[in-house]
Amino acid sequence: MSTQRVYLFHEGNATMRDLLGGKGANLAEMSNIGLPVPPGFTVTTDVCREYYAQGGKLPAALMDEVRKAMAHLEADLGKKFGDATNPLLVSVRSGAKFSMPGMMDTILNLGLNHTTLQGLIQASGSERFAYDANRRFIMMFSSVVLDLEKHAFEEIFDAQKAKRGVKQDTDLTAEDLRQICNEYLALVLRLTGESFPSDPWRQLELAIEAVFRSWNNDRAIVYRRTEKIPDEIGTAVNIQSMVFGNLGEDCGTGVAFTRDPSTGENIMYGEYLMNAQGEDVVAGIRTPVPISQLRDQNPTIYQEFEGIASKLEYHYKDMMDLEFTIERNRLFMLQCRAGKRTGPAAVRMAVEMVDEKLIDKETAIQRVTGSHLDQLLHPRIDDGYLAEMEMKPVANGLAASPGAAVGKAVFDADTAEEMGKYGEKVILVRDETNPDDVHGMLAAQGILTARGGKTSHAAVVARGFGIPCVAGCEAIRVDAIAKQFRVGDLTVSEGDIITLDGSTGQVFAEKIPLIDPDVSGHFGILMGWCDEFRRLRVRTNADNPRDALQAIEYGAEGIGLCRTEHMFFEADRLPIVRDMILAKSDAQRQAALQKLEVVQQGDFEGIFEVMDGKPVTIRLIDPPLHEFLPSFDELLQTTTELRLAVNSLGGQALKEVLAEKEAMLHAVEGMREANPMLGLRGVRLSIIFPGIVVMQTRAILQAAAAVAKRGKKVLPEIMIPLVSTVQELRVVQTQLEAVAEQVVREQGVDIPYLFGTMIEIPRAALTANEIAERAQFFSFGTNDLTQTTFGFSRDDAEGKFLQKYVEAKILPVNPFETLDRTGVGRLMKMAVEDGRSVNSKLKLGICGEHGGDTESIYFCHELGLDYVSCSPFRVPIARLASAQAAIRDRVKVTLDK
Amino acid sequence: MSTQRVYLFHEGNATMRDLLGGKGANLAEMSNIGLPVPPGFTVTTDVCREYYAQGGKLPAALMDEVRKAMAHLEADLGKKFGDATNPLLVSVRSGAKFSMPGMMDTILNLGLNHTTLQGLIQASGSERFAYDANRRFIMMFSSVVLDLEKHAFEEIFDAQKAKRGVKQDTDLTAEDLRQICNEYLALVLRLTGESFPSDPWRQLELAIEAVFRSWNNDRAIVYRRTEKIPDEIGTAVNIQSMVFGNLGEDCGTGVAFTRDPSTGENIMYGEYLMNAQGEDVVAGIRTPVPISQLRDQNPTIYQEFEGIASKLEYHYKDMMDLEFTIERNRLFMLQCRAGKRTGPAAVRMAVEMVDEKLIDKETAIQRVTGSHLDQLLHPRIDDGYLAEMEMKPVANGLAASPGAAVGKAVFDADTAEEMGKYGEKVILVRDETNPDDVHGMLAAQGILTARGGKTSHAAVVARGFGIPCVAGCEAIRVDAIAKQFRVGDLTVSEGDIITLDGSTGQVFAEKIPLIDPDVSGHFGILMGWCDEFRRLRVRTNADNPRDALQAIEYGAEGIGLCRTEHMFFEADRLPIVRDMILAKSDAQRQAALQKLEVVQQGDFEGIFEVMDGKPVTIRLIDPPLHEFLPSFDELLQTTTELRLAVNSLGGQALKEVLAEKEAMLHAVEGMREANPMLGLRGVRLSIIFPGIVVMQTRAILQAAAAVAKRGKKVLPEIMIPLVSTVQELRVVQTQLEAVAEQVVREQGVDIPYLFGTMIEIPRAALTANEIAERAQFFSFGTNDLTQTTFGFSRDDAEGKFLQKYVEAKILPVNPFETLDRTGVGRLMKMAVEDGRSVNSKLKLGICGEHGGDTESIYFCHELGLDYVSCSPFRVPIARLASAQAAIRDRVKVTLDK
Repeated sequence: MSTQRVYLFHEGNATMRDLLGGKGANLAEMSNIGLPVPPGFTVTTDVCREYYAQGGKLPAALMDEVRKAMAHLEADLGKKFGDATNPLLVSVRSGAKFSMPGMMDTILNLGLNHTTLQGLIQASGSERFAYDANRRFIMMFSSVVLDLEKHAFEEIFDAQKAKRGVKQDTDLTAEDLRQICNEYLALVLRLTGESFPSDPWRQLELAIEAVFRSWNNDRAIVYRRTEKIPDEIGTAVNIQSMVFGNLGEDCGTGVAFTRDPSTGENIMYGEYLMNAQGEDVVAGIRTPVPISQLRDQNPTIYQEFEGIASKLEYHYKDMMDLEFTIERNRLFMLQCRAGKRTGPAAVRMAVEMVDEKLIDKETAIQRVTGSHLDQLLHPRIDDGYLAEMEMKPVANGLAASPGAAVGKAVFDADTAEEMGKYGEKVILVRDETNPDDVHGMLAAQGILTARGGKTSHAAVVARGFGIPCVAGCEAIRVDAIAKQFRVGDLTVSEGDIITLDGSTGQVFAEKIPLIDPDVSGHFGILMGWCDEFRRLRVRTNADNPRDALQAIEYGAEGIGLCRTEHMFFEADRLPIVRDMILAKSDAQRQAALQKLEVVQQGDFEGIFEVMDGKPVTIRLIDPPLHEFLPSFDELLQTTTELRLAVNSLGGQALKEVLAEKEAMLHAVEGMREANPMLGLRGVRLSIIFPGIVVMQTRAILQAAAAVAKRGKKVLPEIMIPLVSTVQELRVVQTQLEAVAEQVVREQGVDIPYLFGTMIEIPRAALTANEIAERAQFFSFGTNDLTQTTFGFSRDDAEGKFLQKYVEAKILPVNPFETLDRTGVGRLMKMAVEDGRSVNSKLKLGICGEHGGDTESIYFCHELGLDYVSCSPFRVPIARLASAQAAIRDRVKVTLDK
Repeated sequence: MSTQRVYLFHEGNATMRDLLGGKGANLAEMSNIGLPVPPGFTVTTDVCREYYAQGGKLPAALMDEVRKAMAHLEADLGKKFGDATNPLLVSVRSGAKFSMPGMMDTILNLGLNHTTLQGLIQASGSERFAYDANRRFIMMFSSVVLDLEKHAFEEIFDAQKAKRGVKQDTDLTAEDLRQICNEYLALVLRLTGESFPSDPWRQLELAIEAVFRSWNNDRAIVYRRTEKIPDEIGTAVNIQSMVFGNLGEDCGTGVAFTRDPSTGENIMYGEYLMNAQGEDVVAGIRTPVPISQLRDQNPTIYQEFEGIASKLEYHYKDMMDLEFTIERNRLFMLQCRAGKRTGPAAVRMAVEMVDEKLIDKETAIQRVTGSHLDQLLHPRIDDGYLAEMEMKPVANGLAASPGAAVGKAVFDADTAEEMGKYGEKVILVRDETNPDDVHGMLAAQGILTARGGKTSHAAVVARGFGIPCVAGCEAIRVDAIAKQFRVGDLTVSEGDIITLDGSTGQVFAEKIPLIDPDVSGHFGILMGWCDEFRRLRVRTNADNPRDALQAIEYGAEGIGLCRTEHMFFEADRLPIVRDMILAKSDAQRQAALQKLEVVQQGDFEGIFEVMDGKPVTIRLIDPPLHEFLPSFDELLQTTTELRLAVNSLGGQALKEVLAEKEAMLHAVEGMREANPMLGLRGVRLSIIFPGIVVMQTRAILQAAAAVAKRGKKVLPEIMIPLVSTVQELRVVQTQLEAVAEQVVREQGVDIPYLFGTMIEIPRAALTANEIAERAQFFSFGTNDLTQTTFGFSRDDAEGKFLQKYVEAKILPVNPFETLDRTGVGRLMKMAVEDGRSVNSKLKLGICGEHGGDTESIYFCHELGLDYVSCSPFRVPIARLASAQAAIRDRVKVTLDK
C-alpha cells in the first residue's frame, strides 16, 4: 500500500489505474500531455480499502492531505475554497479501475453555502446561474451523501414551476430558484433533524466518504457481478475544480467518440449542447445536436477539440470516449477513456488501425473479444429497436444455444415439420423435448422449453444443429393439448409470433426485427492474423456435413467431436434403433444393426467428403440406451389409463394395445437408471453390448474407404468415451482394431486411422499414464469431467443451485461455461503430464463446450494441448482466443527477460 | 526365471512355493526334515508359464530333465519305470502356490501298460489289485489327458457289475476287472481313433501337459476369481512314486488335521479307511472312521503318525492338514499344508498357540482374517445342516447387509410391525422399500427386496440398523396386493417361513437353523493384542444409541459417522419432515423445524450419553429432500386413476382426494432430479435451505450441553457433507459456528466442538489445501468418492455392469468393496498431503464402507489416517486389520534395515 493517499493530477499517469482508478489515471495523463484539464486530484483506491478495513471510517490523516491538495488548486486557479468573493467549487466523482457507468454517484458544485453563493454570483455575474448551481448541489448532496429520496426535492421543484405557471426549468427565475433552495434546506432539516452542512470542508469530507460507501450499493454490486469485476479493488475519488457549460451561449458540454463506436468507421462521432451541463443532456430535457454542427457553430473550438481527439487517439492508440465542457469559449477536457464498441466496430477499428500503423497486429488481436465476434456470427435482436419500442421480454430462460429467432409458436413436432415444409418459420415450444421431437426441432427456427438445463435434450440437439434455443424457461406453462402456453396473464396460442434469443435466454411474445450476421472483409483479415500467431489448432464439433461445411468456412481445421448418436435420433433411424435395443433375439438385433450400418456409413461418407484432408474424430455411441426409448412417465400414464379402459370396456383390440404398451413399459423400466449420467453408457455400453460399436467401426472404415477411393484424403480418429480404467480401453480397442483391420483388408485401401479416448472421468485423468500406453489421443470431455469432478449433475445444478452459487460467490463463475482451473484444471494438468510422459506422440485436445470459451482456451494453451474443438459458430472465437493466448505468452517471455 | 525346470523333493523346501507350488514345496520340506515321503519330484510353475507362452507346448528340453529325475527315483526305490518285473508307478498331480482343492485333476498309477501290469501282479502278489489299479489308471488318464467323458467308462463298469449280479465294486473279480480294462482300451480306440498310449514316457509327458492345461479349465478360473488368486502364477506338477493303501488289511489311507478345524480345539481330528485308496473315501463308497480308532486298531502306526503330526505342527507353527497312506504297515506322508479353518477355530488356535509359545502375538494376529471374525459376529446359516439336507437356495440376490435371518414372510410394513409387536419373527419382502416402510423394517428380522442395489434404501437402512438384508433379488416377483411372491414355480405367501443370508445373498423358502455369534474369551484376548499393535483408531458408523452401544462392546473408540437423516425416516418423524419440506410459508416451515429440533435433540442426547468421553462425528443432512417424499411413479399412477374416476363418477369428495394427490405429485415432480446423486443434497441443501442445518446444529449443541450438565464428557464433531469448494464450507460453517456459539452462551456450558467436512467429491480432494484452512477434520466418504471418481452410480453399476467388469478382469475387484488405490487412492493421498501441509492438526478419518474392509484399512494405515470408521459389526475386523497393517510396517522396517 502506498503511503501517499492523495495524488494531484500532475503526479499521476495512465498506468496508475489500480491506484487512481480509470478516470483519475486518464485525467492525470491528459494533464501531463498538456491538454486543458480543470485542475484536481485523486484520493486513491487504497484509501477505499482502508475505509472498509476500518469498518467504514476514513483514515484520520486523510483530510490533511486533501487540504494540501486543495491548496494547490487554489493557487493554480486563484480561487479559494469557501471564499466569499471568488470561491473554488469542485466536483466529487467516483472512479474505479474498470468503468462502471452510472453505478455510483457524482456531486457537482461542492463548496457552496450562504457565503460562497454570494461569491459565485459575483464571479459569474449571474444570480440565476448561481442559485441554479446551488439547488443542483443541495439536491445531489442530499441524495448521495445524506441518503434522502430525490422524490421530495423534485416535488418542491415541480410545485414552484406549477405556482409560476411555467413548463421549462429554464423559465424559472433567480428568485424562484432562491426560494427552491430555501425550501430544500428546510426539507433537509425536517428529514434529518440537522441543518444542511454549510462548512465546505465538512461537505468535502462527507462527499468522499459517500463515494466510498457507494462502492457497495446494490446496483454497483450487481454490475460488478455481471461484468466480473472483483469486489476488492475499490474505487478512487476524483476531486476536480468545476467548469461550467451553462454560463451562457459561449458555453456548452458534449461527449464524443474518436470513431463511430457502432460501425467502427473512422469519423468523429458524438453530440453536444450549448449553454448546458452534462446533467441536462442525460435528463433528456433538451436534445443534443451532432458534433459535426460544432464545426459550423464554433470552428475554432471544433478544431481545437478535433486536434485533442487526434492527439488522444494517437497517444492511447485506441478509439477514445471523450467528455468536454466549453466555459466562456474555453475548452476543457473532463474525461477520456477507451470507448465501448459493438462487435462489428471492434473488428473494423482493429483492422483499420493496423493499416494506419497506429497499432500492430498483436494489439489488434487483443482489442477484440469473443463476445465481439459472437455478435458478428449470429442473427441478433436489434437492441436499438428494443430500446426505442421499450420492449421487455415476457420470460427468461437459459441461454441454451446462441442466436435469435422469430417464428410462429407450435407445440408439437409434427406440426413444426408440416409448417416447415410450407416455408413457415416456426418456434417449437415444448415442456421438454425427447428423441421423438427431433424431426420437428430440425424444421424449427428456434426451440423453447419450459424444463431442462443446458445439457437437456433440447439444448444439446439445438447446439448440435446450430438452432437457437432457450431451455428451462420455468415461467411458461406449456399445454401441448390446448396448443398454447401461458406466462403470467398472457396466453400464446399456436400461430402467434414469438421471438427468442438463445444468446441471452430472453423470450418475447411478439415479433422483434433481427440483424443478420455480417462477416465482412475486416473479419477475414483479423482471422488471418490470428492464424499467424496461434499455436493451438481449432477443430469443430459437428455431426453432419452441413455443420462441418459451416465450420470450415469459419476456419475449422478438423472435427474434434462427431457424436454418432445424434444420427440415431433422426426420424427415419429412431425406429431401427428401437428395434435394435428391444430385439428379442440376436438375429433381430443383427438385422437392425445391419440397417443402421448402411445409414451410418452414408452419414460418415458425407462428413468425410466435406472434411477432405482434415482429421475427423468420431465418438462411438455414448448415451444410455433408454434415451432412445419413449418416456417412462408417459408410458406409465398410458398403461394405467388403458388398464382401466380394458377393465370397464373389455375388447380384444384394446387388450392388445395394452399388452404392447405394457411390454414397452417393462422394457423401459428394466433400463431405467437412478443416475443415468453415471450409469450404463459410453465404453460400458460397448463392453456389455459390443454389437453397436462393432457396427459403427465398420461403418466408419467402410465410409473412409469409399471416400478415399473417390480420391479424397480421410483421417478418421475413433474415440471411445467414458473410460475410467485402461482395461476398458484395452478390451474395446482390441476388438475394434480387429474390425478396422478387417475392413481395411476387405476394401484394399490404406486408411491411417487412430484410436483414442475421452478423458471425462476423474479416474481417467488420475490414471492417464496407464491409458496413454494404449490410446493414440486424448480428448478432454470437460462437460462430464466438470460434472464428475464437482459432483454436479448439470441438469439439476443449473436450475437448482448453480445460479445461487455464482450470485453468492461460492463459485467465481459457472464452471460449465469457464473451466475450473483449480479443480478440473488440476486433473487436466496431471493427465497431460502423465499422458505425455509415457507417450510423447499423444495427441491432446478438448471437445467439451469449454473449447469455445475464451478464458478456457487460454488455459488449454497453457496446458499445451494440440487443439480445441467447439461448435461451428465459435470457431472464429477459438481462433481469436488461441492467438491471444500465444501473444500473451510472447509478452510474458519478453517481460521475463 | 530359474533355468532348472525339475526339482527332486530333496532339492526343494517350504519357502519355494512360488516355484514348486504349495504341495511340491511341502513335500520337499517333509522329505528334508526326515519324514517318510514317497520319493518324487516337481516340475516348476515356470514351466507352466513357458507352456502358455509357447501357445500350449512343453519346452523341448523338459522331458530330458524329467528322465534324469525319474532315474533318481528308480535308484532310490530299486524299481524301474516301464519294467516288466518290478515296475515304478507314479502319481501326477497339480499344485499351485495357493491351494485349489478339487479344481484340477490327478492321475494315479501312471506307468501301467500290458508289460508293467505283469510286473505289478508279480510285485503285489495280487492279480485283482493290479487290474483294479489298471482300470482306475485308464479311466483317469482317458478323462484327464484324452478329455473323454467319464460316463462311458462308468457304463462299462456298471454293465459288468450287472452282468455278474454284484452290487459292490469289491465283489468284482480279477477277471471281471481284466475284461473291463480291455473294454476301456477298445472304447478309447473307438472314441479317439488311436490306441491308448502304452509307452510310460509318453504317458508321463501327456499327463504333465494335461495338468498345465487344466490350469485354465472353467472351474479353476471361476475358483481363482472367487478366491482372488492371480491367473499368472500357474501350477507346478508333482510326480511321485505310488504307494498303495489298498493292498490288503495292513494298508489304508486317511486325512487328519492337527487340531479341530471347526472349533480350534487342540485334538487330532480326521478320519481313515483301511484297505482303500483316497479316491474311495472321496467317492463315498465306504464310510471312513474317526482317526481316534486308529489308536486301537494299530497303535504303532498311530503313534508314529501322531509324532509326525506334532513335529509338523511344531515345524510349521500352524495347524496342519495332512494326508497319509499306510502300505503294508508302513506309513507314508502324501501331503501337508496349513489347514483351512472356521472363524471360531482360527481365533481359538491363534490365541492358544501364543499361550503354548508356539507363535508370537504378531503371528497370531496375522493368522486371523476379517472373514474369520465376520463369521463370529453374525448369526449364520448352519452350513453342515445345509449340506446334510442338500438344501439349495431358491434365489440369490445381493448381499446387502450381513447376517442370516429366519421368519415369516410379510409383504407390508404395517403387518411387519403388528406381528413384531406380538413377538413374531418376520421377514419383510418388498419390491423395493421407501421411507414409509421404515417402521416395518425395524420390526423385521430381515429384509428381502426384488429391486435396488447395495446402496438402495433397503440396503442402507438395513446396514444402519444391523438388520440382515438381501436386496435386488431379481428372480422373485413380489405381488404386494396378493401378499405373496413367486420364484420360478414356487409361491411363497404371507406367513410362510423363509430364511435369508445377508452375507451371501442366498434366499431359502424354508426354515434353516442358524448358529448364533459366539464371542468367546479367545476373541477378547485376540482383540486386546490387536489394540497393542495398531496405530489407527477405530470408530463406528452408528445412528442410534443401540448401535453405538453395540459398537462400544466391540471396541469402538468413537462414532465416525452419525447420519442424522436416518432419524428423519422413523415413523413418528416422517410426517413432520414432510410438513417441513412442503411448507407453504416460512411460519409453517419453522413450526415443523421446531418439532424436529425437539426430537433430534432427544436422539443426540441418547447417543452422547452412551458415547461418554468418546468423539461423535455427526453428519448434517445429506440426501436430497425428495427422498423423504412418496414415490413419484406411485403418485402418477394414483392420480391418473383418480382423474379417470372423477371423470366417470364425479363427486366432491373424490375431487378433493384428487386435488390433494395432484398437489403432492407436483411437489414431488418439482423436486425430481435427473441424477439425484449429483443434485441438490449435502452442503448444497444447507446453502439453499439453511433452516434444516441450523436446527440440527442447535439440536446437537443443546443435547451436548444437557448431557454435559449430567456429568458426561461430550465431544461433538459436526460434519458438513458433499463439499466441492472451500467457499461452501466457509458460508455454512460460519453460519453454524455462530449458532453453536449462541447455544453455548445460552447454556453456559463449555463444549469442545469441532467443525469439519467429508471429502467425497474429487474436487474436494483436489483442493484440500484450501479446504483444510477452514475444516478442523476431514472424513473420507469413499462411497461417494468412488462413485464420482469412477463416474459409476453404484445403484446402476452393481446391477448392470460391475459384476461383468470384475468377471472380465476390467476391474480387479469391486471398488465399492475394496478401495481403488490407483485412482481414488491417488486423490486421497493428495488430500492427506495437501491438507496436512496447511493444517498440521487436521484430523483425518474415513467413514465410507471401505472403513470395514481389510485391504482398504491397510491402505488407510499407509496413508497415515488417524482413524477408520465402520459399522458396529465390522469394528473388530477394523481393529484386526489395523493391527495387521502396523505389524506389516514393523516387518517392512526390519527388512529395510
